Amino acid sequence: MNWLELKSKLQSQKGPGEPLYGVIVRQIQQWIDSGALPAGQKLPTNRELSQLLGLDRSTVARAYAELAQDGVIESHVGRGTHVKARRSAAQSVDLWSDRFSKASQTAFEVMSKQPPASRPAAEVISFSGGLPTEEFYPHEQFEAIVNELIQSGQSRAMFEYSPADGHAGLRQEVLSHLKEQGIIADDDELLIVSGSQQAIDLVTNVLVDPGDVVLLEDPSYFWAICNLKSRQARCIPIPVDQDGMRIDALQSALAAHRVKLIYLMPTFQNPTGASLSIERRTRILELAKQHNVAILEDNFVGDLRYDGEHVPALRALPGGREIVIHQGTFSKALCPGLRLGWLVAPKEVLSRLLLAKRVCDLSTNSMAQITLARYLSAGLYKGHLENVRAAYKKRRDVMLESLSKSFSREVSWSKPHGGLFIWLKLPSGLSARDLLSFAEAEGVSFSPGELFFLGSEGKEYMRLCFIQTPENVIQEGIKRLSAAYGRYVQTVAQASASAYGAARSRDQVLI
Amino acid sequence: MNWLELKSKLQSQKGPGEPLYGVIVRQIQQWIDSGALPAGQKLPTNRELSQLLGLDRSTVARAYAELAQDGVIESHVGRGTHVKARRSAAQSVDLWSDRFSKASQTAFEVMSKQPPASRPAAEVISFSGGLPTEEFYPHEQFEAIVNELIQSGQSRAMFEYSPADGHAGLRQEVLSHLKEQGIIADDDELLIVSGSQQAIDLVTNVLVDPGDVVLLEDPSYFWAICNLKSRQARCIPIPVDQDGMRIDALQSALAAHRVKLIYLMPTFQNPTGASLSIERRTRILELAKQHNVAILEDNFVGDLRYDGEHVPALRALPGGREIVIHQGTFSKALCPGLRLGWLVAPKEVLSRLLLAKRVCDLSTNSMAQITLARYLSAGLYKGHLENVRAAYKKRRDVMLESLSKSFSREVSWSKPHGGLFIWLKLPSGLSARDLLSFAEAEGVSFSPGELFFLGSEGKEYMRLCFIQTPENVIQEGIKRLSAAYGRYVQTVAQASASAYGAARSRDQVLI
Repeated sequence: MNWLELKSKLQSQKGPGEPLYGVIVRQIQQWIDSGALPAGQKLPTNRELSQLLGLDRSTVARAYAELAQDGVIESHVGRGTHVKARRSAAQSVDLWSDRFSKASQTAFEVMSKQPPASRPAAEVISFSGGLPTEEFYPHEQFEAIVNELIQSGQSRAMFEYSPADGHAGLRQEVLSHLKEQGIIADDDELLIVSGSQQAIDLVTNVLVDPGDVVLLEDPSYFWAICNLKSRQARCIPIPVDQDGMRIDALQSALAAHRVKLIYLMPTFQNPTGASLSIERRTRILELAKQHNVAILEDNFVGDLRYDGEHVPALRALPGGREIVIHQGTFSKALCPGLRLGWLVAPKEVLSRLLLAKRVCDLSTNSMAQITLARYLSAGLYKGHLENVRAAYKKRRDVMLESLSKSFSREVSWSKPHGGLFIWLKLPSGLSARDLLSFAEAEGVSFSPGELFFLGSEGKEYMRLCFIQTPENVIQEGIKRLSAAYGRYVQTVAQASASAYGAARSRDQVLI
Repeated sequence: MNWLELKSKLQSQKGPGEPLYGVIVRQIQQWIDSGALPAGQKLPTNRELSQLLGLDRSTVARAYAELAQDGVIESHVGRGTHVKARRSAAQSVDLWSDRFSKASQTAFEVMSKQPPASRPAAEVISFSGGLPTEEFYPHEQFEAIVNELIQSGQSRAMFEYSPADGHAGLRQEVLSHLKEQGIIADDDELLIVSGSQQAIDLVTNVLVDPGDVVLLEDPSYFWAICNLKSRQARCIPIPVDQDGMRIDALQSALAAHRVKLIYLMPTFQNPTGASLSIERRTRILELAKQHNVAILEDNFVGDLRYDGEHVPALRALPGGREIVIHQGTFSKALCPGLRLGWLVAPKEVLSRLLLAKRVCDLSTNSMAQITLARYLSAGLYKGHLENVRAAYKKRRDVMLESLSKSFSREVSWSKPHGGLFIWLKLPSGLSARDLLSFAEAEGVSFSPGELFFLGSEGKEYMRLCFIQTPENVIQEGIKRLSAAYGRYVQTVAQASASAYGAARSRDQVLI
């Protein structure tokens, strides 16, 4: 506590700003909070402090009155002014903690499943997360486009509002892009959004009331689960096998519940990498139609197939147009910083999504939309896709090969035909989260699979992203992972041996 | 209905796309929908159609099976395949209409208050809406910045993810900008958002549960009302006079309800243009603190003061830091297409807002953030503000002067010291919405005031935006408005005279 420090703080304040009495209030509050002014401590009189600070007495009087009203100081005639109580951190939190909405409380609970952020050391090889690598972003092409827009005097629109449903040029390009995949949509069936996550948010906004039943793959995309739970949806898990969502489980769930929405990623699912066959897709559509249930089809990596045959999106199949809301993004195949994606929906649904978009953020940033529209209309996306597909295919192959070399058959993993992820399963009884500590010590990280499950299962699963590191780094990373796994298994074996010994010596009857 | 057209459609389809049977299904559905294939109409047999289209019989069989399952055709052995029923438009809407969430239903109801979009004729002078004019956007400076970023090889970050809480450089600039207004915030008290509307959406996400009481100025910002109602908040109107929110009404509401949040625009309020005095601000803070209620302070045009003294934001006043969530934007003073704004909140609230941001759209577009950060750090904003303030002040003065010349004292209006709007009141009994039809016929438009009221009052108010049209256009627009008003008043007088006459002749007892 240093009154002269406060004086210089007051003197350095110039121009329109916080009133002087406010500066005093905050400083004294801070001293009380930090304990520099303990409870019971006498404060200078109004007269003393105003002299000390070179201020009018009314300013100090106002500051003291404010503090007294806050309940942190008290004045008595004859006894002067004293610090009454230290404002505890808990008290300050209390002011808010019972004010948060259910949406916020639930999101907070779901988030608490997230592992604490890994140490950001550069030497850690990251297979966690799922971002495309910067080295493949078409920086130079984007730069050339922006440059050309500026040179040709066409950049003005970049700083103006776009219509809420998106920039006209981009809309046209997205419709063409969709058409190439067999997705025929009219102009009033399309909405441009700020990335895939906003697509999910708008759909749940428009369709999901608290308590509504939503079916989703188990495991599924972490932020979709978070969004649905935050809307107080009743999330029913539908197990996934190597071919995606299981039809028998879906059928039972549809029979057992009045379902509002099915959320799924039919192609290269997050986190398992599994894809639904055309038969399963057709069957899911039939079941949804039969039960009159809407489908949200998240096609976040539809463009990233490395081998195998193209399978049409649910939206492209007969009957899909009426009950499927289809979403896609340029974040994974192109680059995430643009924050651009789209929603395709029956027009009566689309008009609601558009209204929700207005209510949430009015419209999407114009710069990114116009840049991307030019990029697409110049036909640059196809070449880019060929490049990244070739590169990511190699990376996938190298990771699969490295895994085969480093792990015995007790560990198994998926062999995806596209997307970003390999899904790995440890022998049952082991925990990927425990392994993660060993892995980080060896300099490699991944996403523990349990993050993606609705319940508490999935401890033995882990997700590896193979697109974000060059081949030699993948090889090194898998070597480290294998070493970490060896140390982890050894530790578990030792621990269980000594636990077994301890149990034996303590109580043989329990065995 | 033309089967050959369908054949050529099928032939033109190449590469991966919708399966052929799907194309047939959609075409037949469309013919049924349009009435081209009426109920009872016989369809070609499987054999006939497969020959006609040059397709395998299994493809046609699958299409017919799909249509039969849809219930639009039926097949009987011996009688062939017939159209069963025309799918009505109503039927298609029914599929969805009972699925929309309460959030969507409410937003839809609020939206239905919006007047149908005015005719977009270029000759209509628009005083409706509230956008800054393009002519003042710092296009050239933005272009120079983007150019420089590209030339100096620093544009890469523009296409990468920004952290969810915003680009570091922009965060720093916004903190400095706030500091100049006396708003002291730590780094963990700030969140960059995609414009003011998202700020409102995140705050209501984090704080408002269905049924929660929110107090807001009446009239208030249309999209804030829409957002709050969409979250099923119980919105209690606090009347506004020429000095902003009325303290007596606020006090009564706080005493009568358990209030979750007060939403207000203390400076140049939308739509009235009114500003709260420092005394009212202090009093509102005191009352909020006393009742343990959070405040959302929307400072959307804080930078647009044309005369009068700066009044500190609620957040800048003593005690404000603990209970005020403060939001601002660059959309009004700079340009709206950037979609950038900010939220300042106590850190325990900010961490929840940040989480809600992730759940809603992960992060904000990087291009706009980096461009704006450069613009601010180059110190260009101050000069821009001086220019637009001078220009908007002139426009305000011209509109006030034109109003004085054109309207007699029975019409009254506000004289705001800043912002975007003049708030006009017609003699009671008249309706601004009725006047709007006359005005549009004369070639001028405005926003009817009733849009901004929570209840059904406010029919005699109208909002004029003075910043978006040059002075001579303002003069012409007000002339037209005055002419429209004259015609409207005359029509009302004639109508009431004849209604009076009609009533007299019909039933004299009623008078």
